[in-house]
Amino acid sequence: MEQVIIGVDIGGTNTVIGIFGLHLSLIEKFFKQSSELSIKNPDRFIQSLALEINRLVGRKTIICVGVAVPGKVNGERGIVELATNLGWENVALATDLSEILKVPVKIEHDVRSYTVGEAMKGAGIGYNNIVCLTIGTGMAVGSIVNGQLIAGSDYLAGELGHDTVQGHTQACACGKVGCLETIVSAPGIARLAAEAVSSNKKTLLQEVNGEITAFDVYEAGLKGDEAAKEIFKFVGTTLGRKLATVVYLLNPEIIIIGGGVAAAGDMLLDPIRKTLEVECPYYISDLKIKIGELGDMAGLIGAAHLAQVKEG
Amino acid sequence: MEQVIIGVDIGGTNTVIGIFGLHLSLIEKFFKQSSELSIKNPDRFIQSLALEINRLVGRKTIICVGVAVPGKVNGERGIVELATNLGWENVALATDLSEILKVPVKIEHDVRSYTVGEAMKGAGIGYNNIVCLTIGTGMAVGSIVNGQLIAGSDYLAGELGHDTVQGHTQACACGKVGCLETIVSAPGIARLAAEAVSSNKKTLLQEVNGEITAFDVYEAGLKGDEAAKEIFKFVGTTLGRKLATVVYLLNPEIIIIGGGVAAAGDMLLDPIRKTLEVECPYYISDLKIKIGELGDMAGLIGAAHLAQVKEG
Repeated sequence: MEQVIIGVDIGGTNTVIGIFGLHLSLIEKFFKQSSELSIKNPDRFIQSLALEINRLVGRKTIICVGVAVPGKVNGERGIVELATNLGWENVALATDLSEILKVPVKIEHDVRSYTVGEAMKGAGIGYNNIVCLTIGTGMAVGSIVNGQLIAGSDYLAGELGHDTVQGHTQACACGKVGCLETIVSAPGIARLAAEAVSSNKKTLLQEVNGEITAFDVYEAGLKGDEAAKEIFKFVGTTLGRKLATVVYLLNPEIIIIGGGVAAAGDMLLDPIRKTLEVECPYYISDLKIKIGELGDMAGLIGAAHLAQVKEG
Repeated sequence: MEQVIIGVDIGGTNTVIGIFGLHLSLIEKFFKQSSELSIKNPDRFIQSLALEINRLVGRKTIICVGVAVPGKVNGERGIVELATNLGWENVALATDLSEILKVPVKIEHDVRSYTVGEAMKGAGIGYNNIVCLTIGTGMAVGSIVNGQLIAGSDYLAGELGHDTVQGHTQACACGKVGCLETIVSAPGIARLAAEAVSSNKKTLLQEVNGEITAFDVYEAGLKGDEAAKEIFKFVGTTLGRKLATVVYLLNPEIIIIGGGVAAAGDMLLDPIRKTLEVECPYYISDLKIKIGELGDMAGLIGAAHLAQVKEG
């Protein structure tokens, strides 16, 4: 009977289930709307997820399951301590899912899973000291130091999106003002674009119907729109200054940028690199700065990998 | 025959040699002027140091030697790659000293040795995630994550003193401007004091004969001098903002402040703590912020401890 490893990436909108072979080669992946799995009710969600996994794998044998969760995850105890976007608190996800599926289940923070995915199969292959960012609705960091994934003393390591940028006063959903992710995120970029438009800047963004998205800014930038390029320059420079502190602290070999906003490619990478050249002259020659290679798949692959890892 | 472990802490001015029992209890320590040991000539320094160690231990048996070095240290290969203040480049300190003494020698960066010292015998006992700062002539950080000392991919982790503070333009010896240690260091504090005096602020510092030192500022602060307290508040707040990024990234259990400037105690800790309360509201309740407990001894103890550690 064919043996498979399951990776799951839970999101507020979609939950992705991946079926992997034993060497983490993807056999198939499936998208489910999270609402269809009753995401707001953790007990029902776990049952629906288990059903769905069993249905998808059919007669194959599951070896283990890894789940990436957008929240504060105690990976050792297998508990989602808090997932604000899902409305979860102290959900024993690993134990409960394991009881139904009768196989070992590991869970991890989504950005840390993403980081492990890029480290194992993506831009981070061969590196032991990796800083991986995801920039999308929010912004966070996963770090691998000496080959070891960092969770912090209370599973809060990497929430750099809520570190303040001095001199900025945009309100953040977290209750603070000027958090990095009020600038470095898809909504941040959209807001900066809306501000450019309402200040009557001459820009292609004036022609966008309806609400401007980060993708509109990216497209305008590709067409050479100065205002759009200026926005990415500001976002990249702001991020680069914060990353300078990360570089001084951890001296990583590679910084990997993932998440939806990473699609901007060099428009985002160039100002980050230029900023780090100025800020970290003694580090920059040995530092790689790259866009992630796995896109949406990174979290799934990372979760599946973590499921396999034996406890140290 | 009594067995001992030797710890050495090399400084530009003084080199300290500690003789320890097998459980890192200090038996005796000795100060030597580094110039007396020919610090500027690495070969002669190593020979003088070995002679001095052999003289001091007398008939005791040396088990191993650990040396803390102010520079870029490749601990695995035992090489001091660069120590600007000593004028050293690619000095095979561990091998050469080991050849003369006929015992294993380990070397490590001074601030990382300091961090290990505080972790093993000082303020960090019992913690696995430690951020330790030394603030003196310069400023740097040592980090222990999941119980593991972080050196970075090129032994440059922790040089946070050269991370820029936005909006500051004081020239740093490294060639950049606005480095954190142009503010957060003994010379930084002395400079701020000189500026307060020359701006004709009403302050006890006006009465200092000759050049004002950080210690003068501390003493004036103890006497309630507002300008002096304001300087420590500014230094602590500036440092606190940078530490916020460190906290978001690593989620440590404890931040330990060491080095000469740590003598300022609460005058420095209070603004750091207040800044982190504002910047890191979700982390602060579980975060300890303490002054180091070992003072000058931390580096010596850390080096001696590292000498004992078996390779993983």
